Amino acid sequence: MAQKNLKKGIFITFEGPEGCGKSTHARLLYDFLRKRSYSCLLTREPGGTKAGEAIRQILLHSDGVKMSDLTELFLFEAARSQIVGELIRPNLAKGSIVICDRFSDATICYQGYAGGVDIKAIEKLNAVATGGLKPELTILLDVDTVTGLARAKAKGIDRMEAKELAYHKRVRAGYLKLARQYPGRIKVIKVEGTIGETQAVVRREVERVVQRYQRAG
Amino acid sequence: MAQKNLKKGIFITFEGPEGCGKSTHARLLYDFLRKRSYSCLLTREPGGTKAGEAIRQILLHSDGVKMSDLTELFLFEAARSQIVGELIRPNLAKGSIVICDRFSDATICYQGYAGGVDIKAIEKLNAVATGGLKPELTILLDVDTVTGLARAKAKGIDRMEAKELAYHKRVRAGYLKLARQYPGRIKVIKVEGTIGETQAVVRREVERVVQRYQRAG
Repeated sequence: MAQKNLKKGIFITFEGPEGCGKSTHARLLYDFLRKRSYSCLLTREPGGTKAGEAIRQILLHSDGVKMSDLTELFLFEAARSQIVGELIRPNLAKGSIVICDRFSDATICYQGYAGGVDIKAIEKLNAVATGGLKPELTILLDVDTVTGLARAKAKGIDRMEAKELAYHKRVRAGYLKLARQYPGRIKVIKVEGTIGETQAVVRREVERVVQRYQRAG
Repeated sequence: MAQKNLKKGIFITFEGPEGCGKSTHARLLYDFLRKRSYSCLLTREPGGTKAGEAIRQILLHSDGVKMSDLTELFLFEAARSQIVGELIRPNLAKGSIVICDRFSDATICYQGYAGGVDIKAIEKLNAVATGGLKPELTILLDVDTVTGLARAKAKGIDRMEAKELAYHKRVRAGYLKLARQYPGRIKVIKVEGTIGETQAVVRREVERVVQRYQRAG
């Protein structure tokens, strides 16, 4: 079966608080689109590139290393600028659907709304790191903070997940605020029911965007 | 002998192209000031903190890892924001002389003038990472690019040093341009003659600033 390359790639991000199931749903969407013969890339932030994975190691797995929210911010932006230049832009240019597990919105919610770094400063840094690239569609998987954290912790815990409950509550509130600010781009999907049921809603949102691109192309 | 703490700390940076002898002269100055009983901190960028040293590892010793100038920039800013918050500001607050081997000027010259990242964008990032902190005095040790690189390479070579000669020539030209822009802060010292001779000139510049602080204090 020949690969379907769109005339113009589509950039889709998954966001949400810890334990919302982003990585699972990003992977299921990727498998689904590949079966339907779309050229597709699945990646994650921080990471996705060699430099990004080294940065991820510092951000998530460096026990006992003091790190301010501002330092975290710059590290996330470093990984972001590399993944945009090395992977996301080249794949979009050849007409692929690029699915990324977290992107700029995460920095606004974690280091900004939860960590207290000035939101305007983060927006400036995001613009420099991405060269202005924005997702066409952002799936925001929303889950109650306590339920989500319990779910995340069952799989073992990283440095970001280890932050206090109040921090994670501010992350979630930040995401919901962004969703109200950008209703055209960010689609909130409440995580309830089975994985299959949630994934069906995810696919419906994605198909709407893909069809728009096919009509346009 | 009691330690002399100034009423207000003094922030001094060393800059210059590869092989200019920054680290040697920063260390000699530190020893000299300590012998004269000043409370003093010697540190370096990237590094100086646990997070910074981990970042330094990625920046200088990650063979075969693709990294854009923009990604480098964010990594340097990450290390910078951490060292400013964790070490430089607290030590200045208690009246120490803080000597730092490289700081914001390096990013302007390396990632900006040599790497091609927009200078205005770097200035914005520097301002966010440092919270506006600027050195009182910057010693710019100037050395001919070929001589300097040969000297640096004799000690083994890191990822930044491995860049092409033209890159390093742009670094040096960038430094000299900054020195013309900020003649009050940046003092250019040509590296010629013995280490002792150069260090004597370094000390003269530093003593001028220290005396100013003592009169003011």
